[in-house]
Amino acid sequence: MLRIDENQIVRLLQECFGARSASLIRGIGDDAAVLRLRGAREYWVVTTDMLLEEVDFRRSWITPPELGHKSLAVNLSDLAAMGARPRFFTVALALPSDVREKWIEDFYRGMSILAERQGAVLIGGDLSRSSSGIQVTITAIGETSDRRVACRSGGRPGDFLYVTGVLGKAAAGLALLQQGRTSRRSAAERLALRSHRTPEPRCDVGLWLVRNRFVSCMMDLSDGLSTDLPRLCEASGVGAEINGAQLPVFAGARRWQCDPVDLALNGGEDFELLFAVPARKAARLEKAYPSRFPPISRIGRLRRERSVVWAPGPDMPLRPLAPGGFDHFRNSS
Amino acid sequence: MLRIDENQIVRLLQECFGARSASLIRGIGDDAAVLRLRGAREYWVVTTDMLLEEVDFRRSWITPPELGHKSLAVNLSDLAAMGARPRFFTVALALPSDVREKWIEDFYRGMSILAERQGAVLIGGDLSRSSSGIQVTITAIGETSDRRVACRSGGRPGDFLYVTGVLGKAAAGLALLQQGRTSRRSAAERLALRSHRTPEPRCDVGLWLVRNRFVSCMMDLSDGLSTDLPRLCEASGVGAEINGAQLPVFAGARRWQCDPVDLALNGGEDFELLFAVPARKAARLEKAYPSRFPPISRIGRLRRERSVVWAPGPDMPLRPLAPGGFDHFRNSS
Repeated sequence: MLRIDENQIVRLLQECFGARSASLIRGIGDDAAVLRLRGAREYWVVTTDMLLEEVDFRRSWITPPELGHKSLAVNLSDLAAMGARPRFFTVALALPSDVREKWIEDFYRGMSILAERQGAVLIGGDLSRSSSGIQVTITAIGETSDRRVACRSGGRPGDFLYVTGVLGKAAAGLALLQQGRTSRRSAAERLALRSHRTPEPRCDVGLWLVRNRFVSCMMDLSDGLSTDLPRLCEASGVGAEINGAQLPVFAGARRWQCDPVDLALNGGEDFELLFAVPARKAARLEKAYPSRFPPISRIGRLRRERSVVWAPGPDMPLRPLAPGGFDHFRNSS
Repeated sequence: MLRIDENQIVRLLQECFGARSASLIRGIGDDAAVLRLRGAREYWVVTTDMLLEEVDFRRSWITPPELGHKSLAVNLSDLAAMGARPRFFTVALALPSDVREKWIEDFYRGMSILAERQGAVLIGGDLSRSSSGIQVTITAIGETSDRRVACRSGGRPGDFLYVTGVLGKAAAGLALLQQGRTSRRSAAERLALRSHRTPEPRCDVGLWLVRNRFVSCMMDLSDGLSTDLPRLCEASGVGAEINGAQLPVFAGARRWQCDPVDLALNGGEDFELLFAVPARKAARLEKAYPSRFPPISRIGRLRRERSVVWAPGPDMPLRPLAPGGFDHFRNSS
């Protein structure tokens, strides 16, 4: 078992690569890096994410076009979290020898539909034989509006916490696949599976929130609220308090014996945005927020005390929110 | 077996991602993509390459710092081929559970030494558990001098062909490892192993050549001259003629039963630069070429006839140069 966590690695890298660059606004440790290039009015935002077979996906649970979509989506979601507009991306693809040409075509077909909708252009990549499973690594490059960018740091005690969309829906889809049921799907089941297989990155929302200067800090939810919120809090030097009754849960999951609140707190891969808004801007945000975007929910607030706590229901005492989300290395065996 | 080659994939991608961007000067099919960003005087150059255990390296043949160096070097070499100065890079690393923290530290230590020497700054990455071997994917971003950039296209019949350094040295090192000899190394053996394990990307040479407008086309030699030269020729719409007597071969390889000329033609991973220079500029180039750089050799010329041919020795007839280099997919089984 690998006895090292991602935070340790981040510290190691920060030590090892002490050299700074005047062009580097944000480096290792946020959702993406932020660059100021000579002469450019905008900032440039760069992020890398990989998806590995048997770690992040199973070939029997996702079609090639869905995998193409999802691989790009998880990267664009990091750009969304910074308030950047997707511009370019590269794809490195390692394929075992049993993958056919048709698979590759379908994979790229699915990816290209999302890419076109989000305005991202494929600019290159690498292709290799793999001695084991399929491996996809994408680097996405985005552009901010002027020099406005959101980071994990910047949140202040008293700021309201919001999320986009519904939490736990992707995890509900994963649970369905784990249960192995493949009979005729209900509408709720199809919704959950779609969230798991083809998440929609919230780039337009992130860009709008940052351009209009509503957010004090932001990130995307990839590992679950209980794991990601403490990261946001640590970067901002604050704690947080979540109102369980306000969580936008996916009630449909009850039908396949999942607890919607548990999924909303601990389920990964929602790729919704989590952000904080100064209290004085909250009413204005809620009024101005475009109805074409997925709804937002005010789920709590940042606080001075460093701990992250939640109240399961109205008038219930606050309790610690223990990280129960997905971390590649903690779950390795 | 995967019945698709890299050229087919490139065509598929060009079809699938037909959408162009005004900012995209060069897209899929060259060593790297070239971007013109709003307001920036320079072009930005982006490339991605991956190294996979058991495909591109064996853990018993390379130390962690050497692997860190090499992973970055192969990417910086693509920037060198475009005449771009390295600026930033990201690293996605997938690690099996038997890899210890010390391994990760050593890997990044080796990488950081090359990065610092080449002026490249680590800006982010991803880390995951791998269910199989070690996988390293790097995306490197570089910057041109003004808007001068070299591509594979642009070569004209009559241009002289040059390479930097010595060809076949890295393949000679690989041959040593394949022979399994681990006794006390001669100087030639150490040189060959160093070329194989820690190639030095020719960024300063590439930048100098392009800034001074000497080259009509350029690429880096990753798969061997006999495989890479036809790619350069195809992109430029020309053929080429190689003078075998002028090849800068690694004679030391004879001591371990390798044919230096065969290695120079077909050996991969030299990461030297291959470039063409208009005949009228050749004398000026050879005079101005800085002595601090690795030597260059004039190995032949481009020609109108589309085929790629070579003469094994002086006064010997020209014969076809058949691609004998490394291609991931042709060699898959």
